[in-house]
Amino acid sequence: MKLYGFWRSLATFRVRVALALKGLKLDEPEIPVDILQGRQFDDAYRKLNAQSVVPALIVEGAGSPLFQSMAILEYLEEIRPQPALLPRDALGRARVRGLSQICVSDGHPLIVPRIRRYLDKDLGLDESARDRWVAHWSLIALEAIEGHLAREPETGRFCHGDAPTLADICVASQVIAAKDYGHCDVSGVPAVMRVYGECMRLDAFALSHPQRQSGAPPGLRG
Amino acid sequence: MKLYGFWRSLATFRVRVALALKGLKLDEPEIPVDILQGRQFDDAYRKLNAQSVVPALIVEGAGSPLFQSMAILEYLEEIRPQPALLPRDALGRARVRGLSQICVSDGHPLIVPRIRRYLDKDLGLDESARDRWVAHWSLIALEAIEGHLAREPETGRFCHGDAPTLADICVASQVIAAKDYGHCDVSGVPAVMRVYGECMRLDAFALSHPQRQSGAPPGLRG
Repeated sequence: MKLYGFWRSLATFRVRVALALKGLKLDEPEIPVDILQGRQFDDAYRKLNAQSVVPALIVEGAGSPLFQSMAILEYLEEIRPQPALLPRDALGRARVRGLSQICVSDGHPLIVPRIRRYLDKDLGLDESARDRWVAHWSLIALEAIEGHLAREPETGRFCHGDAPTLADICVASQVIAAKDYGHCDVSGVPAVMRVYGECMRLDAFALSHPQRQSGAPPGLRG
Repeated sequence: MKLYGFWRSLATFRVRVALALKGLKLDEPEIPVDILQGRQFDDAYRKLNAQSVVPALIVEGAGSPLFQSMAILEYLEEIRPQPALLPRDALGRARVRGLSQICVSDGHPLIVPRIRRYLDKDLGLDESARDRWVAHWSLIALEAIEGHLAREPETGRFCHGDAPTLADICVASQVIAAKDYGHCDVSGVPAVMRVYGECMRLDAFALSHPQRQSGAPPGLRG
């Protein structure tokens, strides 16, 4: 398998974590596509991913690269079922997928480069209005997650029970969006932050953090 | 099962179609939550869905309602596997889920009421700028779908082969977003529109269309 990604991309982060949790190795180091420089619109990359977004996962024997992080996570779960990142019961899986989608559908897509570019170029918003946008939508998604984690008995050490699931991967990416990119005050989402802390104790999460990637600017690298 | 939804909600449309394709019946007619009037923020509904969005699916024996349309679609696929709305092979399932996510994650969330409200109240955009926003992001998602459908051999009568899948449900919802809500020129996405035409020949899709719901304003009802 080969992974096209970008150090800062939260969708790439999610795939990185799943690969690591499942002990799946790439054939070569992650191939960078600089989405801040617009390299995702190059013809060569567009042939790999019609939507011009990262990640794209090249799988031996597949006609086309895999696309969309949630679809890739589900694929990895199917080809390498252990350790399981989805619960065994259908209702549990629905909860884990629902928590994941709050982040992947309703949080993250609002702050990606193409949106920030539209806010800048098409709407003429200044940097502070763009920052408020990013902070607002990043935190709103976490508040929705908090509403579930804080009151539902399925919450354990992690989002769903005591082992990490796809929900933890997606929630962790959303915390990075809010905390590191949106500079949000996250004191109102304590259950989320507790789970995030548990995630970051695991190498699979910690070493996948954007700031730990070789492409990250040296000043940011933690 | 009970479904909280809204006639105009595209996420509710997706659940409606899946229920119909699988021949699953609700215990009572869909329960309306008027998201244009802000009823999703009422305390009573917030207890059912912490994110204050529709749909919410009440399942007998589940502690909490199911949330997020994609998680609900996957749940329905698991409890009622036939007719299958996902292909049998893992790569096929990844493609169908990827196409679905382009709509559910990168298209639809950009045009929902909370976003339009922010564009209006927080950014002070006038109606024409808000309409351009809705049209722009609705069409961008369809163009990404077109890039897949037009060039990948898995495309058949429907998005993936000759029977409807989750991808068709999600793409159909995105076409409604672009065509009926965004008033987009869809002439640039012919493969998408061909598939949409096939979908709308099926009662499960046609009767689930927002304009066919009893809550739709009489002038719109088609």
